[in-house]
Amino acid sequence: TDSNPAGTGTIKLAVIPGDGIGQEVTGEALKVLEVASPAGVKFEQTRYDLGAERYLATGEVLPDSVLSEIREHDAILLGAVGGKPNDPNLPPGMLERGLLLRLRFELDHYVNLRPSRIFPGATSPLADPGEVDFVVVREGTEGPYTGNGGALRVGTPAEVATEVSVNTAFGVERVIRDAFARAARRPRKKLTLVHKTNVLTNAGSLWWRLFQEVATEHPDVTTDYMHIDAAMIFMTTDPARFDVIVTDNLFGDIITDLAAAITGGIGLAASGNVNPDRTAPSMFEPVHGSAPDIAGQQKADPTAAILSASLLLDHLGYADAAATIETAVIEDLAARQPGAARRTSEVGDAIAARVTG
Amino acid sequence: TDSNPAGTGTIKLAVIPGDGIGQEVTGEALKVLEVASPAGVKFEQTRYDLGAERYLATGEVLPDSVLSEIREHDAILLGAVGGKPNDPNLPPGMLERGLLLRLRFELDHYVNLRPSRIFPGATSPLADPGEVDFVVVREGTEGPYTGNGGALRVGTPAEVATEVSVNTAFGVERVIRDAFARAARRPRKKLTLVHKTNVLTNAGSLWWRLFQEVATEHPDVTTDYMHIDAAMIFMTTDPARFDVIVTDNLFGDIITDLAAAITGGIGLAASGNVNPDRTAPSMFEPVHGSAPDIAGQQKADPTAAILSASLLLDHLGYADAAATIETAVIEDLAARQPGAARRTSEVGDAIAARVTG
Ligand SMILES: CC(C)[C@H](C(=O)O)[C@@H](O)C(=O)O
Ligand SMILES: CC(C)[C@H](C(=O)O)[C@@H](O)C(=O)O
Repeated sequence: TDSNPAGTGTIKLAVIPGDGIGQEVTGEALKVLEVASPAGVKFEQTRYDLGAERYLATGEVLPDSVLSEIREHDAILLGAVGGKPNDPNLPPGMLERGLLLRLRFELDHYVNLRPSRIFPGATSPLADPGEVDFVVVREGTEGPYTGNGGALRVGTPAEVATEVSVNTAFGVERVIRDAFARAARRPRKKLTLVHKTNVLTNAGSLWWRLFQEVATEHPDVTTDYMHIDAAMIFMTTDPARFDVIVTDNLFGDIITDLAAAITGGIGLAASGNVNPDRTAPSMFEPVHGSAPDIAGQQKADPTAAILSASLLLDHLGYADAAATIETAVIEDLAARQPGAARRTSEVGDAIAARVTG
Repeated sequence: TDSNPAGTGTIKLAVIPGDGIGQEVTGEALKVLEVASPAGVKFEQTRYDLGAERYLATGEVLPDSVLSEIREHDAILLGAVGGKPNDPNLPPGMLERGLLLRLRFELDHYVNLRPSRIFPGATSPLADPGEVDFVVVREGTEGPYTGNGGALRVGTPAEVATEVSVNTAFGVERVIRDAFARAARRPRKKLTLVHKTNVLTNAGSLWWRLFQEVATEHPDVTTDYMHIDAAMIFMTTDPARFDVIVTDNLFGDIITDLAAAITGGIGLAASGNVNPDRTAPSMFEPVHGSAPDIAGQQKADPTAAILSASLLLDHLGYADAAATIETAVIEDLAARQPGAARRTSEVGDAIAARVTG
């Protein structure tokens, strides 16, 4: 049975439902979290209204005071963030860079964890996906996501715009270490580095060197390397070959959406933005966006948010409770009737009922 | 019937077979090119031995004098370049940066053209791909491929390595123009920009602005935008929606391998590195690599190389001859017996026979 590693029965949870369907799916995730939490464990929730709506209403994205408050929690549950596509009042990247990525960077979420498996009943677009069960360890605080770079002579025919991918031995080594440790704990013990070392030779050499170095400490882990373009091919022709993948922030963004697609949809893909050193709260969120087109209609599938809550419990040390949610989701998925659409809350209710059993 | 736009019956062709299966597939492409060329047109071939073998033997990658000679040709046919994986004598990126990318950059191949369709008889890993027929216009001379960036304190725990994506209005506008023109010539007249404007905001704004600007000149072309991660999902769940895609050098590298995978394999994917201004010869090559593991065994499928020869003829103004090759390939593919492996030369012979009719 689980025990709280923090030694207290109260978990301080920061909840950021965000925009669009984020609101609805977060409600269901919390519903399931409540019933799944081990006896004696209480969730103390603080709700933070952040996202497109708040920005459009107040001009605020993530006030420093709010960030300081969030920092004092044990974990963060996030729904989805984002306004209507091409809203002229929402500059591109404003919420992504100002809220989502700022949280990941400030709270040092250097392990962006994205498990992929084909759940029972899920329909893969692949004719024969095989037994898919891998996890992507995406670096979360460096690479092309740092916001380095800039632009000159903007708006003119002489404009030059740069994006700088920053990679440090410090940042690359720690995420590679985490990935090796995860691979070592899994039955197949296999780790694949994905990069583009033949073109991005500066960053590539660094990733390659540290991958080789840490590998010597894990003779039990089988290693493999693949260029990002080749990974596209294997991900569609033989995804079952993967166990753990470690890669940079941008390649990880790309490959995890492909992984979500081939395992039956972004509606099931959960993620953890993890600070393994626990110097700040980790954040859990579905991979999908805010889907403004179906927001407020109880049409969204809350499964990815619910699975994110399971990752949250696991991170906090409640592996049994986490597994209970996962099992309930698997049972619910297996029982789904093709073509029978359920409301968002019905899916949450059904999974919660299976958890309470 | 075709006429040589250069006004002469002789086409000067630089042939770079390269390494591994590059040698075999180039031979078949030349075989088909010979029989497909219009009456009165003669190919004058110069063969350049470049690639891993030459580098390992001589230390030379692309001598300036060779580059100058190549420049004097009407077009380049390239097989594949690359040595054994992890050969310690072959520094990562040496051939890619020094040969392949150097040719693309020096000869200003700013349109990297990669058509994707599901040919008859080809097996897509997708259960239901639909009618796939799109072309990716990948920028070829900028972006993260410029080799800008560097590294500090290499080999130490304090190493920092950067990769700089350089994007200029000059470079982005010309490739977007080319893509719009191509889209306007196709029946569906649809152009999708793929980028990551919400994170890579400097480069993203530039691409977005120029895409909008050039769009006003093409009211007949329907436009669409997709983040690279979302493109992964659509490419696997609804690839038939795409007509022309325009994107940067790295996103283009990634998406075209995925496109090759979902249309039935890299063995069929052809590409043109095109200099639309014709200030230097364009270069045509299969998307696949040198596959050292099967080299010299007559196991490689030369179809992608043969289709690259078709793109070459089309670029030189011989649209009819190009179409003849394409038709021959389609017929050959439709006639293939599943499980009946043919030798590389047998495939070339069969397609050449269909061309001569
Ligand atoms: C919204 C965006 C900033 C984000 C990312 O690129 O990381 C999203 O795509 C994700 O994968 O979580
Ligand atoms: C070999 C490599 C440099 C090249 C690229 O990245 O462009 C290849 O992957 C391609 O797509 O032609």
